Amino acid sequence: MTEPLTLSIDAMGGDNAPDMVIEGIEASMARLSKAKFLLFGDEAKLAPLLERHPQAAAVSEIRHTDEAITNDQKASTALRSGRNSSMRLAIDAVGSGEAAGIISAGNTGALMAMAKFVLKTLPGIDRPAIAGYYPTQRGESVMLDLGANVDCDADNLVQFAVMGEVFARNVLGVENPTIGILNVGAENLKGNEAVKKAAAMLQETSLPIKFHGFIEGDDIGAGTVNVVVTDGFTGNIALKTSEGTAKMFGEFLKQALSETLMSKMGAFLARSALKTFKMRVDPRRYNGAMFLGLNGICIKSHGGTDALGFSNAIHVAVEMITHSFNEGIKEDYAQLSGNKPMAEKATDSE
Amino acid sequence: MTEPLTLSIDAMGGDNAPDMVIEGIEASMARLSKAKFLLFGDEAKLAPLLERHPQAAAVSEIRHTDEAITNDQKASTALRSGRNSSMRLAIDAVGSGEAAGIISAGNTGALMAMAKFVLKTLPGIDRPAIAGYYPTQRGESVMLDLGANVDCDADNLVQFAVMGEVFARNVLGVENPTIGILNVGAENLKGNEAVKKAAAMLQETSLPIKFHGFIEGDDIGAGTVNVVVTDGFTGNIALKTSEGTAKMFGEFLKQALSETLMSKMGAFLARSALKTFKMRVDPRRYNGAMFLGLNGICIKSHGGTDALGFSNAIHVAVEMITHSFNEGIKEDYAQLSGNKPMAEKATDSE
Repeated sequence: MTEPLTLSIDAMGGDNAPDMVIEGIEASMARLSKAKFLLFGDEAKLAPLLERHPQAAAVSEIRHTDEAITNDQKASTALRSGRNSSMRLAIDAVGSGEAAGIISAGNTGALMAMAKFVLKTLPGIDRPAIAGYYPTQRGESVMLDLGANVDCDADNLVQFAVMGEVFARNVLGVENPTIGILNVGAENLKGNEAVKKAAAMLQETSLPIKFHGFIEGDDIGAGTVNVVVTDGFTGNIALKTSEGTAKMFGEFLKQALSETLMSKMGAFLARSALKTFKMRVDPRRYNGAMFLGLNGICIKSHGGTDALGFSNAIHVAVEMITHSFNEGIKEDYAQLSGNKPMAEKATDSE
Repeated sequence: MTEPLTLSIDAMGGDNAPDMVIEGIEASMARLSKAKFLLFGDEAKLAPLLERHPQAAAVSEIRHTDEAITNDQKASTALRSGRNSSMRLAIDAVGSGEAAGIISAGNTGALMAMAKFVLKTLPGIDRPAIAGYYPTQRGESVMLDLGANVDCDADNLVQFAVMGEVFARNVLGVENPTIGILNVGAENLKGNEAVKKAAAMLQETSLPIKFHGFIEGDDIGAGTVNVVVTDGFTGNIALKTSEGTAKMFGEFLKQALSETLMSKMGAFLARSALKTFKMRVDPRRYNGAMFLGLNGICIKSHGGTDALGFSNAIHVAVEMITHSFNEGIKEDYAQLSGNKPMAEKATDSE
């Protein structure tokens, strides 16, 4: 890329904003050669922070606004009365074409509602989904939806499968990504109506999609498939359950290793290995959920993240833009659903 | 207890049955002083196994049957044509009062269908639930439903809350157990209709139940509440996701510790601590899911478990019988819903 990449930042979103936002930009400079940041937020707070972070200051431009969306605001209220908020103005910059993507660590529901309103959904997509990638025993996988749609029907799940497939192929670089639908068992007769119908649709379609079938919760960590498809209720809970388990596991390990003199000595000798291990499961490394299915790149950072996590969310946006994810999904979706919409197809064969 | 406790065993259920069943009984002898086992299954296989396990043989009695339920059998088929199966006969022994509880590592759906048919549900319970307990950062918690009911309404969830409360109080020994409903956010406006309505019912009830409110996936491992209430679809996936994460975590740790000479030496010095840690998160220690809401004790062991896991499932049955769990739930349910059924109460105040 020769043109500097312009990213739009909701500088006021997140528990530790705006400090961690500026520090995150500073931290991301190491792996970003050419980028420009539009910082939407309170100039009185942002200017002194930039003074202390000259690297970030060199590539940032403050766009002042007093208003910000709070975490407890309802999405509908934010949409109605948040037109001058840092979040909304940052999204508008993508809508107008000034920025190539937006990153926010603020209110997820408000961000999704505003992004959907401003950027619109891609052709063929009824509802955007939140996708995230995470470590598995066999490399990285992507899971969606992580919470945008609490209730999903079979059509939504099939659309998630296509979006996930395009993401795994274009951004993760997996040649023939496999897709699995999260369920309570691998057998065809298990599960609720939505997953059963979606599985039938993906099994019977002639599209070049590698559908593995149903997978169970333990297949997520095992890395059985490259793309895990699920509704937003289950996906959000599965993701957070996994984070909670990892935290508990880490806590138990720390306790065990600090119990005796011998174990402390052992931990000291193995400190480099333990550090590698800790890094490998550090949730900050996987921070930055992608809103898929929108006519623009929108990345949601974890609200409680720090500078390292925020810089990762920036990195995710850059990856998606560099790999022209949205162009890819548009083409693939047109091709995939070329002959006939998938939903119709499945209904025909019933 | 002076009378020996009689347990009924489906000796043919499980991937490693009947070997691990007999070995599991042998292993459980260490913590069971007075117990008797009725072993339902193929005498030709069981008799030689008992010969090699004299401790188990001394307390076991074989009840021969040729038939067994397979893992791929549908629950309805098993119910219709499995009347002489080891699983069904073992349940019948509880129904007739000959045994105080039954343990099986076989087909979960078939076990639930048969147990419900033979034992019936307790007064006030529409649908039994599968409950399990697991380690958290603050001790043990119980979660239900883990997969018996894929679709649940608010009434089901409220009934699960009551059953879980009784379990935590009587069997786990928690004085005032706190109850949380698993959701995608802690705020009242989040989630699907069933969880929102169930939360309103539990919030507005005057019953002596300590309802914490909504919890998220990471609260499971954190031990935020003693009882986690959820539908069977989400609960099953959350449980298995957690198991998968723990496995991945363990694998990554093993890899890191075996990478260099230093880390190997460290791991050697810390081997006792690492063993303690491994034991603490060993899923076999938490094997034995309880079918709650039935007029009899029925424990489902993990299908792929070994002797240690099966002996734990036996232990769970003994705990529930010793603490008169079903008497407790009947009394509590009558008392809790004494003035008015909870569902009606919530409707009144809407």
